[in-house]
Amino acid sequence: MPATQAERDAMHRALALAQHGPRGVNPQVGAVILSHDGEILAEGWHRGAGTVHAEIDALSKLAPGAAHGATAVVTLEPCNHHGRTGPCSEALISAGVARVVYAIADPGERSAGGGERLSAAGVDVESGLLADDATALLAPWLTVQRLDRPHVTVKWAQSLDGRAAASDGTSQWITGPQARADVHRRRALADSIVAGTGTVLADDPALTARAGDGSLLDQQPIPVVIGETPTPDSAALRSHPRGALFYATRDLGAVLEDLRQRGIQRVFVEGGPTLASAFVRAGLVDEVLAYVAPVLLGGNRLALGDIGVPTIDDARRLTVSSVERLGDDLLIVALPVRRAQGTHPAAHSPTQQGVS
Amino acid sequence: MPATQAERDAMHRALALAQHGPRGVNPQVGAVILSHDGEILAEGWHRGAGTVHAEIDALSKLAPGAAHGATAVVTLEPCNHHGRTGPCSEALISAGVARVVYAIADPGERSAGGGERLSAAGVDVESGLLADDATALLAPWLTVQRLDRPHVTVKWAQSLDGRAAASDGTSQWITGPQARADVHRRRALADSIVAGTGTVLADDPALTARAGDGSLLDQQPIPVVIGETPTPDSAALRSHPRGALFYATRDLGAVLEDLRQRGIQRVFVEGGPTLASAFVRAGLVDEVLAYVAPVLLGGNRLALGDIGVPTIDDARRLTVSSVERLGDDLLIVALPVRRAQGTHPAAHSPTQQGVS
Repeated sequence: MPATQAERDAMHRALALAQHGPRGVNPQVGAVILSHDGEILAEGWHRGAGTVHAEIDALSKLAPGAAHGATAVVTLEPCNHHGRTGPCSEALISAGVARVVYAIADPGERSAGGGERLSAAGVDVESGLLADDATALLAPWLTVQRLDRPHVTVKWAQSLDGRAAASDGTSQWITGPQARADVHRRRALADSIVAGTGTVLADDPALTARAGDGSLLDQQPIPVVIGETPTPDSAALRSHPRGALFYATRDLGAVLEDLRQRGIQRVFVEGGPTLASAFVRAGLVDEVLAYVAPVLLGGNRLALGDIGVPTIDDARRLTVSSVERLGDDLLIVALPVRRAQGTHPAAHSPTQQGVS
Repeated sequence: MPATQAERDAMHRALALAQHGPRGVNPQVGAVILSHDGEILAEGWHRGAGTVHAEIDALSKLAPGAAHGATAVVTLEPCNHHGRTGPCSEALISAGVARVVYAIADPGERSAGGGERLSAAGVDVESGLLADDATALLAPWLTVQRLDRPHVTVKWAQSLDGRAAASDGTSQWITGPQARADVHRRRALADSIVAGTGTVLADDPALTARAGDGSLLDQQPIPVVIGETPTPDSAALRSHPRGALFYATRDLGAVLEDLRQRGIQRVFVEGGPTLASAFVRAGLVDEVLAYVAPVLLGGNRLALGDIGVPTIDDARRLTVSSVERLGDDLLIVALPVRRAQGTHPAAHSPTQQGVS
């Protein structure tokens, strides 16, 4: 049975509840229990590893038997495994819930299958409600589950014509203060911030997340330096409050694997055209943030260099997720199109691009 | 006295009326005559060279004496010269108009001064109402008056990272059909479409404005080819319905001067990175249309090449006028910032751009 309006409203509420939970190793999940006639009976959310799941949190607020015949609306498919808490699918069945509506499937190898378990027990199950919203909320966690590596955001600032600096290397005032503040806000949301040794030597960045007055924000990403050139003892990032990690390698996959082992889920790659190009070339990008300043520079200081695209069919295709004006500048957020081998996006007809 | 709401409404109406007139050598102008209590008494617009001006058109619809004490709301400052029609300032004074509200000043050397003439005659004059809207409407005409050359729009399509093609030169499917349709619509609004010989030889463009099915639109720009390499007799643009103009020169100023002599006010530069870069380098750009496809290409096929910017202080600064989504692509419209020598935009604080 398709979702009702009451269930859709409840899913919006559940997504809001999910964000009460911490951003950590576990996903942010929210749950709402609805009565047969669509009234909210209870709400819950997940408070992080070692605490009960959102559905259990919601059920725990009801008197025994009160969830009988009710509908559970959850942002993520109820789990089906015995972790630190029992499987949510069993708890919902035991509580007598008649219907479960969830947004996205659990991609976890051990935890998936809750939907099937519920159906097998006679519970009416509906999935996919507000799936895009739930996917956006859980993007980093889903990346870890699906690709077995941290979620990678690659950020760069560029002139409209794709340059990171003028011919002589000067780059002051490409983007303005609002764009820079946005970068620092996003740094604070990441678990780690990554730069290449070239950028460390050229710019001596602090790699901290700072407010407009230069003070440190509460949340600080762990600074990560990739590259074979040593970082000087006097480098600013050596004073970073989180302590820096150094990887003297060009193997980005190995770096991400190690970061994942350390519990890092959100990686913010900021450090220079060479490193950004390497991540793009390796196909290790989940989100692109291009801060575009409305200036033209020309010349050869490109924001992105060789990304291993010899011909147009190999272009790294993205979809624009959002365009935002930040002062004079634009922030274009784009996500890679993960297309099947040998197919092309349907929206593009095979016409000649040049002037015609 | 500041403009009233009735006058503001009338200016919106006058701007709409202006667009009934043809886009030609003369500006599109609209006028509304309001009674003392803000009722519309008459409307008018200019129908092109050799016909009466908008104010006269509106006044002509009133009985003698009916405009006495009225307010004239006009999109452009009433003229003050004896051209093919008498000066509008005198006509408004003779009609007994008590107040004149206009949007933008007349930049013409011979025609300006109408506002002063009206004031001197005791008419209450207010200028600047909806000036931005009127400026946008008259941008090409204003460019001709102020800079004594046609208005130049430079268009290019680029990947997000500023490339016009992949490394091997292939460029199919960078931008999609909606972006291409937008280009053809804008071609039809231009008086001429300009390409360089390199693009003519590489792409053999027809340089026509076409509908999605390939049929010609009603309005066709005159095709213009700039460069010293001869265009083959078999070139597609030699079949253009308007007949092509060829300029075997690199002197873009001379080309624009000749085009202006031919009555061309709107020039649409479309033809290749080399020509686009040359127009930017020469400072002969009034509007940039960057069609940005959400793809990454890398490599050295840049949408814009050398534009004569050695250092960041010489960057060609623009302001983003609009950002539009066209299918998967973005259209960024940007206008040059014409700043005073030695000053920097206030919005940009002098902080280091790179990663910090």
